[in-house]
Amino acid sequence: MTPNLHALDAEDANSGAQSQFNSLGNLQHLLTLEGLPKETLLHILDTAEQFVSVTSLQREVKKVPLLRGKSVFNLFFENSTRTRTTFEIAAKRLSADVINLDIQTSSTAKGESVLDTIDNLVAMQADIFVVRHKTSGASANIARHVPSHVHVINAGDGTNQHPTQGLLDLFTMRHFKKDISQLKVAIIGDVIHSRVAKSNIYGLATLGCKDIRVIGPKSLLPSQIDLQGVRVFHDLSDGLAGVDVVMTLRIQKERMAQGQVPEGEPFFKEWGLTSERLAQADAQAIVMHPGPMNRGIEIASEVADGPQSVILKQVTFGIAVRMAVMSIIASN
Amino acid sequence: MTPNLHALDAEDANSGAQSQFNSLGNLQHLLTLEGLPKETLLHILDTAEQFVSVTSLQREVKKVPLLRGKSVFNLFFENSTRTRTTFEIAAKRLSADVINLDIQTSSTAKGESVLDTIDNLVAMQADIFVVRHKTSGASANIARHVPSHVHVINAGDGTNQHPTQGLLDLFTMRHFKKDISQLKVAIIGDVIHSRVAKSNIYGLATLGCKDIRVIGPKSLLPSQIDLQGVRVFHDLSDGLAGVDVVMTLRIQKERMAQGQVPEGEPFFKEWGLTSERLAQADAQAIVMHPGPMNRGIEIASEVADGPQSVILKQVTFGIAVRMAVMSIIASN
Amino acid sequence: MTPNLHALDAEDANSGAQSQFNSLGNLQHLLTLEGLPKETLLHILDTAEQFVSVTSLQREVKKVPLLRGKSVFNLFFENSTRTRTTFEIAAKRLSADVINLDIQTSSTAKGESVLDTIDNLVAMQADIFVVRHKTSGASANIARHVPSHVHVINAGDGTNQHPTQGLLDLFTMRHFKKDISQLKVAIIGDVIHSRVAKSNIYGLATLGCKDIRVIGPKSLLPSQIDLQGVRVFHDLSDGLAGVDVVMTLRIQKERMAQGQVPEGEPFFKEWGLTSERLAQADAQAIVMHPGPMNRGIEIASEVADGPQSVILKQVTFGIAVRMAVMSIIASN
Repeated sequence: MTPNLHALDAEDANSGAQSQFNSLGNLQHLLTLEGLPKETLLHILDTAEQFVSVTSLQREVKKVPLLRGKSVFNLFFENSTRTRTTFEIAAKRLSADVINLDIQTSSTAKGESVLDTIDNLVAMQADIFVVRHKTSGASANIARHVPSHVHVINAGDGTNQHPTQGLLDLFTMRHFKKDISQLKVAIIGDVIHSRVAKSNIYGLATLGCKDIRVIGPKSLLPSQIDLQGVRVFHDLSDGLAGVDVVMTLRIQKERMAQGQVPEGEPFFKEWGLTSERLAQADAQAIVMHPGPMNRGIEIASEVADGPQSVILKQVTFGIAVRMAVMSIIASN
Repeated sequence: MTPNLHALDAEDANSGAQSQFNSLGNLQHLLTLEGLPKETLLHILDTAEQFVSVTSLQREVKKVPLLRGKSVFNLFFENSTRTRTTFEIAAKRLSADVINLDIQTSSTAKGESVLDTIDNLVAMQADIFVVRHKTSGASANIARHVPSHVHVINAGDGTNQHPTQGLLDLFTMRHFKKDISQLKVAIIGDVIHSRVAKSNIYGLATLGCKDIRVIGPKSLLPSQIDLQGVRVFHDLSDGLAGVDVVMTLRIQKERMAQGQVPEGEPFFKEWGLTSERLAQADAQAIVMHPGPMNRGIEIASEVADGPQSVILKQVTFGIAVRMAVMSIIASN
Repeated sequence: MTPNLHALDAEDANSGAQSQFNSLGNLQHLLTLEGLPKETLLHILDTAEQFVSVTSLQREVKKVPLLRGKSVFNLFFENSTRTRTTFEIAAKRLSADVINLDIQTSSTAKGESVLDTIDNLVAMQADIFVVRHKTSGASANIARHVPSHVHVINAGDGTNQHPTQGLLDLFTMRHFKKDISQLKVAIIGDVIHSRVAKSNIYGLATLGCKDIRVIGPKSLLPSQIDLQGVRVFHDLSDGLAGVDVVMTLRIQKERMAQGQVPEGEPFFKEWGLTSERLAQADAQAIVMHPGPMNRGIEIASEVADGPQSVILKQVTFGIAVRMAVMSIIASN
């Protein structure tokens, strides 16, 4: 029942499914949720549970010494203050040293290749690279290049994957709705550009979710043929009927061709998640969004701030999930 | 005798006087010195005294674990490397984790609102926000928005307030001249654009200072009517006669309308603090400046570097004062 | 036998040879390898040996508390992510607090002079400044200005010196080839713009190296008269004959006048280090490069990645050498 999503992306994205395990079969990198075994996925989620309590407000010191003396390099070839910050916080709560590299101004500007830069950072004894890059497969390329004591986390590669976002979404669903295999999950909007959607679909499938729906205009969804195991809806009310989880996606204007979708208000009119539309879902359904939100475009403020929204809990769980991923791969 | 300074500022600056205390009456935020009770003000200054010794050169390790595991976010919507650095040092000396956010490149650029950004950072379990913003009242707006376990420090909002600068100035005056209630204090120059001046005037009034003078051209001073309890001088020699503290302000070219004052040398000729002019003040008077200085414009180098200058001591005390503010609000 | 290199540089570079020792004769700053006594140089290299083991992969926690509570300020007036990062890592492994200052956006932009900025940072109780500046002599100027408890490390000043790079090169040569006094060392390429070459030549001379060669086109070498004790070759094969160490330099296009050398492929054809040319050197010769490399211009990939290359070991040793320099000067 694993969906085939390769056709979602025109680029030849080497997903890294094979290369994230080391020769002992342990998780060396986190590159993709595609092909990540159920037991590994559950181990990450269970470890994250423990870190939720480490970082709770009740706790005096929100810090553990698990990565003391380790160096975490944030390599953001594509800017994302929000994601970089969550990794920075997660690493510091594990007591790691964090180095933020502004790639625009680094040696690559002096003509050095990315892999030469990586070699140099490895020689400086980097332990973990957190990589965001606009090209699908970039993290996997770097992972194939580094020695076995160095770890790579994909923090978003092109339109391919964003596995820690997928994990925090799964964590959030499990937290609020318990058994993921019994859930009906709807993902709305710009699926074709969304690495978040892809990571979620792979993860949900692995955890046995039998009702995954993608909802949106034809121009924003991959063709039905390519999505075995995922149902496609072009009508919002139909798609939302009875679901337990509603995930709206950010309209990524920066990745779209002009005129691909009606912009702004027209999009909201047709596809925006309002209270009225949300009423189609199960009364206990939770509302998720990977952020940053375009209020009044893909989601109404009344829903974003409403009682069913767990959007800010996603952010909080995201820290714990990233702490879990870092501590697991660093010990392998 | 509290002066009414609201008319200093055309913007509707909600000063945050009410909102800086929590429901138990403890200081949750530091937003303004307006209305800050004398006992709170003295508690901050007394706490800062202890941190002066923590950071003295004699001490082997200039660090205390008071904020270990706490996350301090520097949110500088308006660039100020100097002020940001002082907060970063203060937070690190308290063993906090510090996250510097480059707001120009953050999610707000992707269309997210400032309060959504704040919500997200709160969800990442931020403990303290240090906020600089070009709009008066911005810190108070953020403070009203955050939950009760989160703290906001105003690091300068528009032309409104810069309370930690005011506190370090008061600390410096008390350090060198003891009883503030007995002092004659002159503030020279661009008072109308100066949040520093406003914070000082409120603080001095609260500590019982009975002789506060502002000196400058009409175009840089608020009208006399609006400044109950503060005397206005348009002649430098008259204003400086016999004062114990001379505070020159930075000419803020970036905030001025063109032609508002004579620029450069002509300004210096009329309003620059020279040794000759300083001789009008008490022989033991101290000279202060909030920095960065425009040498040869508002102050002569002979005075800036002279025996009466305590300008660099202000900077040193600024670290201790910021440590005091952070440790006090974080424990409330 | 100390070579006279002043004429290498048209600027009046005060090398800081005198000013790097304090009144007790201890090393307060590291500004230049010119005139640095042999015993001091060996003390740094021997101390670095110990830090190599601190940061080895076998060690659980790559950190020592030697600089706990100290503040290291990276003052990079000229951008160099690579060098800044090595100092940041070195300082964090010594448990120091590191503050990176983006000088382009700091108070100097508001009209404050560099020395006023330095005074302010000293007042914030900076312990070590790591300075990179495009002007020869800038670090020495700052060093002369600061009080005796503050330390300055030159991280590259114009075309003058880059002493920590020189030290890590010497460390690497000693590590692989033992007795430096018995070595034949060839430096190829853009010597006239290279602060790295200068630092190496002074250091090699101090350690008794009797065969130092510079190889390159006339336009990239200083005139023979100015280089007492160093032999000049304008033929690559002649110069490489029998040497133990081959150091290729980065072609610094950014420092060159147009047309000073043939660019790109033509340069490689004449001066690029290929396997064939390397065969002229001793069979056990090591190949070094200060990075970042221009592959296919000054060095062939087959050599850069070949068995004689120690280029990435230089980077690793660079961390240990910088830890050694910081810990030594901070204790003086």
